[in-house]
Amino acid sequence: MAGGGGELVSNKQVIFRDYVNGFPKDSDMFLTSGNINLKVPEDSDGILVKNLYLSCDPYMRLLMNHIPSQSVFTAYTPGSPVTGLGVGKVLDSKHPDFQEGDLVWGTIGWEEFSLITTPQGFFKIQHTDVPLSYYTGILGMPGLTAYAGFYEVDLLKNKFGFDEAFNYKEEPDLNAALKRYFSQGIDIYFENVRGKMLDAVLLNMRIHGRIAVCGMISQYNLGEPEGVCNLMSIIYKRVNIQGFVAAEYYHQFPKFLEVVLPYIRQGKITYVEDIVEGLENAPAALIGLFRGQNVGKQVVVVARD
Amino acid sequence: MAGGGGELVSNKQVIFRDYVNGFPKDSDMFLTSGNINLKVPEDSDGILVKNLYLSCDPYMRLLMNHIPSQSVFTAYTPGSPVTGLGVGKVLDSKHPDFQEGDLVWGTIGWEEFSLITTPQGFFKIQHTDVPLSYYTGILGMPGLTAYAGFYEVDLLKNKFGFDEAFNYKEEPDLNAALKRYFSQGIDIYFENVRGKMLDAVLLNMRIHGRIAVCGMISQYNLGEPEGVCNLMSIIYKRVNIQGFVAAEYYHQFPKFLEVVLPYIRQGKITYVEDIVEGLENAPAALIGLFRGQNVGKQVVVVARD
Repeated sequence: MAGGGGELVSNKQVIFRDYVNGFPKDSDMFLTSGNINLKVPEDSDGILVKNLYLSCDPYMRLLMNHIPSQSVFTAYTPGSPVTGLGVGKVLDSKHPDFQEGDLVWGTIGWEEFSLITTPQGFFKIQHTDVPLSYYTGILGMPGLTAYAGFYEVDLLKNKFGFDEAFNYKEEPDLNAALKRYFSQGIDIYFENVRGKMLDAVLLNMRIHGRIAVCGMISQYNLGEPEGVCNLMSIIYKRVNIQGFVAAEYYHQFPKFLEVVLPYIRQGKITYVEDIVEGLENAPAALIGLFRGQNVGKQVVVVARD
Repeated sequence: MAGGGGELVSNKQVIFRDYVNGFPKDSDMFLTSGNINLKVPEDSDGILVKNLYLSCDPYMRLLMNHIPSQSVFTAYTPGSPVTGLGVGKVLDSKHPDFQEGDLVWGTIGWEEFSLITTPQGFFKIQHTDVPLSYYTGILGMPGLTAYAGFYEVDLLKNKFGFDEAFNYKEEPDLNAALKRYFSQGIDIYFENVRGKMLDAVLLNMRIHGRIAVCGMISQYNLGEPEGVCNLMSIIYKRVNIQGFVAAEYYHQFPKFLEVVLPYIRQGKITYVEDIVEGLENAPAALIGLFRGQNVGKQVVVVARD
């Protein structure tokens, strides 16, 4: 028995098969089962986590590329489990910041149990009067992204309601649609799409408009990125563009919770989740993300407690 | 005799023939001669200026397009004189801010004499211990552009020296060149080129690098703009991009002079002009700008006083 005692149990895992071209397919991942000791090894200061909720996020596609050019992330390793953000429960800890029973969120494997050898990046979940799965979405990295993009880039304040909405995939003339909805021009754009959408947005920016950029999902499955053409608008409209990643704002997570938790408790934020049950359904859920199949935040339930 | 007396003299003019496709050619402009009364009409509060120095600037190409899409500028009128920034001497004034003998700079016609009916946008030249032509360049709009891009966009401070230089038109591999010169990445880029240069720069930005954007000369003679591909770097490197135009900083012109004039007087700034003599040579000078024929700021001398 490895590592000074402890229970050896089976551990289902979703393995990343090999680097991906184009849209990810079922065959790019496969399910396997190993064994895991539910005790943290003696010489480690890690934590052993039972995984509860997995998050499917667009950035994961970038980690499936052989060389994520210029990436601040590290690519997935073929033959190893897919990793992503998720919520789990600490079963064992040799780290002073965590103890058995703690609920945490951070980067975990797509598996039933994960041994986290460097748990410094994990957050302890203090507020459990909201669904735990929210810490994969509105109360996790995606929520913090929205918060940082709006508040820390000095963008939109005091405005959580939408006046209008349209589906950029179904609009035959994006330029015309934007002119219709933004007759005075766009003050603030949250860039997560790129492609034709960004080109149309650039044409319709207001003078001194601002663009917060944290994703470009239309490009992730392309071999070569598409060109963006209407960049002269940056000069004509004196636009400010700020790229950012949520990871740089993790130190503000407590402040973020202070702002957002009351809105959730008071029902002032409408939040929709698309919940899939079972680790074995995680690959299909992730693949569906890039086909626009999910309605709301895509979450995978590994276990409910 | 028009306008209550005054001298009627001949006025050579460079006329814009018609909207331009591709690179501008000699035949897109032609020289003509009219007459002008050297007195401001009684019912005007304008000024009558003898033009001394004309500035050739890349933005002028944009004014030669039929519809400068999204432009904050107004296109040239076929059959009317080319206009641009220049230095002149006031021969007559009915405006309280100007009087005969004042040296000024602002937007004038490509002609010997211009009647300026709205001289509010003109600057009086106070410091004449430096060459007057400098007010078309280092002490005019281009200088203010550099100043605003560095100081007002909170960019590069206390650093007017170049460590390295290369010609982006002669470099076979821009990405490799930038990696060679900027092994730690680029902190600040002043965007005036676009095209392959911007794509290579994006790949080589440092984390939290900044890009000030006030021109994209590689695109001005193209029918359709080229796509820029490496925009994911905006996220990976958390880049800030700020578009701006010098016109928004004209109120800071006195402060700008306070900073730059001492450097010029002390010989701490090396400034090179490419001076062409004679209004009749102005079209060729402007055309040469887009072929990279000038060495230093392209100026046309209409008259020296």
